[in-house]
Amino acid sequence: MFIIGELINGMYKKVARAIEARDSAFIVDLASRQVQAGADALDINCGPLCADPRGDMRWLVETIQKESDVALSIDHTKKDVIEDALSVCRSGAIINSTTADPARLASYLELASKHSASLIILTVDKRGVPQDKERRLELAAQAVGICAETDFPLDRIYIDPVLMPINVAQNQLFGILDVVKDFKLFAQPPVKTILGLSNISQGAKNRSLINRSFLAMAQSAGLDAAILDPLDKELMDVLISGEVILNRAIYCDSFIEAYLKSKGKC
Amino acid sequence: MFIIGELINGMYKKVARAIEARDSAFIVDLASRQVQAGADALDINCGPLCADPRGDMRWLVETIQKESDVALSIDHTKKDVIEDALSVCRSGAIINSTTADPARLASYLELASKHSASLIILTVDKRGVPQDKERRLELAAQAVGICAETDFPLDRIYIDPVLMPINVAQNQLFGILDVVKDFKLFAQPPVKTILGLSNISQGAKNRSLINRSFLAMAQSAGLDAAILDPLDKELMDVLISGEVILNRAIYCDSFIEAYLKSKGKC
Repeated sequence: MFIIGELINGMYKKVARAIEARDSAFIVDLASRQVQAGADALDINCGPLCADPRGDMRWLVETIQKESDVALSIDHTKKDVIEDALSVCRSGAIINSTTADPARLASYLELASKHSASLIILTVDKRGVPQDKERRLELAAQAVGICAETDFPLDRIYIDPVLMPINVAQNQLFGILDVVKDFKLFAQPPVKTILGLSNISQGAKNRSLINRSFLAMAQSAGLDAAILDPLDKELMDVLISGEVILNRAIYCDSFIEAYLKSKGKC
Repeated sequence: MFIIGELINGMYKKVARAIEARDSAFIVDLASRQVQAGADALDINCGPLCADPRGDMRWLVETIQKESDVALSIDHTKKDVIEDALSVCRSGAIINSTTADPARLASYLELASKHSASLIILTVDKRGVPQDKERRLELAAQAVGICAETDFPLDRIYIDPVLMPINVAQNQLFGILDVVKDFKLFAQPPVKTILGLSNISQGAKNRSLINRSFLAMAQSAGLDAAILDPLDKELMDVLISGEVILNRAIYCDSFIEAYLKSKGKC
């Protein structure tokens, strides 16, 4: 499982304040703790209330890159902001994200190609987030078709079926697990799948419990990557034991420590 | 998910001592606590070192039935011991278990019919526990065929693909999840599936963590029943949140309490 740490996000007040105050130590510490806890990449988002997204995203990228070679996931809704951040970002970044709208997707594929970046594609189009499994599959199939036509390397594509909160769309969750499996059928080698895990428990109680129960299910459905809170130790323990159960990491009595060590992080 | 509490088992020293001393209060308390924690049925096993299995199993059944109407799962390797226990047991018991060996299975189906009991069938025959998914499927298909031929109600059949410990057969676990799904295809209405969950972590460290991660995966694969420790609160929390994620229980902020209440147990 490829783990993208979600915590450097301006929607958290402390992070927003650190960005505003250009508090490098805070950001570098938050980056470092996520990597230590098992993150393979870090999502970077200046937050919804950010006054200068270009400047802030650029500062975040530069601040983290100065201290770490962890891959960065450039998370913004505006393409020009992403483009600007990519211009100072080492190659191997992840663009988070584009919708599956054909014109938009094509322009993001061009951007990802130019910067040797991976690309997260949401199964969303102008009609919004699908309410059922069938429409998610349809949008994913269409998107993968467009990627293949433009010769974009499919192993740098992550399809995100857009997890909705359990208190809003409880009846869609089983379908999400299904599409995670079915997305694999569209291409050979299969495209990767990704979820923004914390979405499931937005506004709910027992957030970590819901997150980790769903994560184990999604893992067994073949999920390749997740954007999540790596500092949630109970969540990470479930994730790591899941990797062992699914025979992707070798069992030993100290399998949690061994998993983190294998990433070179403890 | 149908939950069978596993704790009344003579392999636990305290339970063995309570059985030997005919300590009804201990057994009734252990029964009651499991039911309070969400168990729908209780497994009853006098343990491997029991000197008088018939007498002990009969005493266990009578002792629990005096205080509770919870369903009992009569767990013994010898048919005559099970038969004796069933003779004092209310109807609706579960026989735990028979192998899929045709002659043995036929005789257990007769026993189950006579006592209106459900029957757990292990995917095991004279050659032992299968090492792969294909043999598990073969044995299950053969067993379901025999059940159907004898007109035994398929909704009273539980197929158990026999979970092996992670430190012995790590590479079989993904296959177990697969067969839990595939067993559903053999008959209409589908037979039920069951797992002895704690087997997975026998002799391992982090037992509860491994148990609960695997449980969530098995739940999403469609597992109908599990023999487990209902007093493991972290495990039960994952189980209950899994039922909500899979839309088998309605989400509300206090979904854990609501789930237990819906069983009439708190």
